[in-house]
Amino acid sequence: RRGEMAKATQLINNEVFRAFATYAAIVLLKMMLMSLITAYFRMTRKAFVNPEDTASFGKGEAAKKFLRTDSDVERARRVHLNDLENIVPFVGIGLLYALSGPELSSALLHFRIFTGARILHTFAYLIPLPQPSRGLSWAVGYAVTFSMAYNVLKAAWLL
Amino acid sequence: RRGEMAKATQLINNEVFRAFATYAAIVLLKMMLMSLITAYFRMTRKAFVNPEDTASFGKGEAAKKFLRTDSDVERARRVHLNDLENIVPFVGIGLLYALSGPELSSALLHFRIFTGARILHTFAYLIPLPQPSRGLSWAVGYAVTFSMAYNVLKAAWLL
Amino acid sequence: RRGEMAKATQLINNEVFRAFATYAAIVLLKMMLMSLITAYFRMTRKAFVNPEDTASFGKGEAAKKFLRTDSDVERARRVHLNDLENIVPFVGIGLLYALSGPELSSALLHFRIFTGARILHTFAYLIPLPQPSRGLSWAVGYAVTFSMAYNVLKAAWLL
Repeated sequence: RRGEMAKATQLINNEVFRAFATYAAIVLLKMMLMSLITAYFRMTRKAFVNPEDTASFGKGEAAKKFLRTDSDVERARRVHLNDLENIVPFVGIGLLYALSGPELSSALLHFRIFTGARILHTFAYLIPLPQPSRGLSWAVGYAVTFSMAYNVLKAAWLL
Repeated sequence: RRGEMAKATQLINNEVFRAFATYAAIVLLKMMLMSLITAYFRMTRKAFVNPEDTASFGKGEAAKKFLRTDSDVERARRVHLNDLENIVPFVGIGLLYALSGPELSSALLHFRIFTGARILHTFAYLIPLPQPSRGLSWAVGYAVTFSMAYNVLKAAWLL
Repeated sequence: RRGEMAKATQLINNEVFRAFATYAAIVLLKMMLMSLITAYFRMTRKAFVNPEDTASFGKGEAAKKFLRTDSDVERARRVHLNDLENIVPFVGIGLLYALSGPELSSALLHFRIFTGARILHTFAYLIPLPQPSRGLSWAVGYAVTFSMAYNVLKAAWLL
C-alpha cells in the first residue's frame, strides 16, 4: 500500500511530467528573477515607493526625494507583470497538458518553444529591442499556451 | 511497471479531474483573452506605455503624444489584474480540491458557478454594468474558491 | 480499474502531498485576504477607481471627488501584487517539489518557513514595520522557493 502511494506521487518518474517540471521550474525562476532586477534598479536609480524604504537616506525632505518613479524600474515591473500574465497560464495549462498523455516529442516542442520565447521576450523588453521583437516573442509564447489548452480540452472532452 | 506509471499520470481519465481540466483551461483562456483586449484598446485608442511601441507613428514629439494612458486601456488592465488575483487561486486551490476526492456533482457545481461568475464579472467590468453587478459576480467566485479551500483543508487534515 | 483510478487521484493520501495541500491552501487564502483588505480601505478611505463604484455617493462632481488614490489602498494593493509575485511561484514549484518525492521533514520545513515568512511579510508591509523587516521576510520566502526549485531540477534531471 505504501509502495502504491509512493508511485502515485512520483509522477516525476514519467518522462513528459519530468520535462514539464524542468521547464516550468525554469520559467518560474525566470519570472522570480524580475524581483531582483526591479530591486537592482530601485537601488541604483534610488527610486522607491515606500517611505520606510528611504529611511536610511536621512529624514524628512532628504529621504522624500527618493519616493519617485524611474523609467527603468517601471520597465522591469512591466516585464514582471507580463510574466505573471503569461507564465502563470503556461504553468497551469502546461500541467494539465502534461497529465493528458501527450507524445513526449510534442510536449518537449511546446515546453522548449515557450521557454525560449519568454527568455527572448525578457531581453527584447529590457534592452529594449525595436518592435516587433517583443510583440513576436510574446505572440509565440501565447500561441504555445493556446495550443496546449486546445489539447487539454480535446483530451478532457473526448476521453 | 510502465503501465502503472502511465496510469498514474493519466489523471485525466478521472471524471473529477477531467472536469477540473476543462474549466481550469476555460478560465485561464478567458484570463489570457484580456491581453488581446488590452492590445486592441491600446491600438484603437493609440495609448502606449513603451517608447519603442510608438516608433512606427513617427519620430520625436509626433510619437511621444501616444505615450499616454487611456481609460479603456486602464479598465481592461484592471480586469486582467483582477483575473490574476482570482482565477490563479481558483486554479491552485481547484487542483488540490479535485485531487481530494470530492463527489463529481459537488465538483461540477463549484467549477461551473466559478466559471459563470468570472465570465459575468468580465462583462460587468468592461461594459460597465451598474454596481453591484461586478461586486456580486466577484463575490460569488471568491466564495466558491473559499468553499473549495475549506474542503481541501478538511480533507488534508482528516484523512 | 475504478479503484486504481481513485487511488491515482487521491494524491492527498500521501503525507508530503497532504502537507503541501494544507500550506498551499493557507498561503493562497492569505493572498485572497488582500482583496478584502483593499476593499476595506477603499470603502473607509472613500478612494475608488471606477466611476460606477461611486454612483451611490451622488452625481457629477459630488461622486467624482471619490475617484482618487489613497496611500493605504495603494499599500494594500502592493502587498497583493507582491503576494502574486511570490506565492504563485511557491504554489507552482511547491507542487512539483511535493511530487518529486522529498523527505516529509524537509518538505514540512520548506512549507512552514515559507508560510511563516509570508505572514510576517504581510504584517511588515501593512503596519509598516521599519526595514529590513519586510526585506528579510521577503528574502526568506524567496530562498525557500529557490531551494525547492533546485530540488525539482535535480530530481527531474537525475531520476
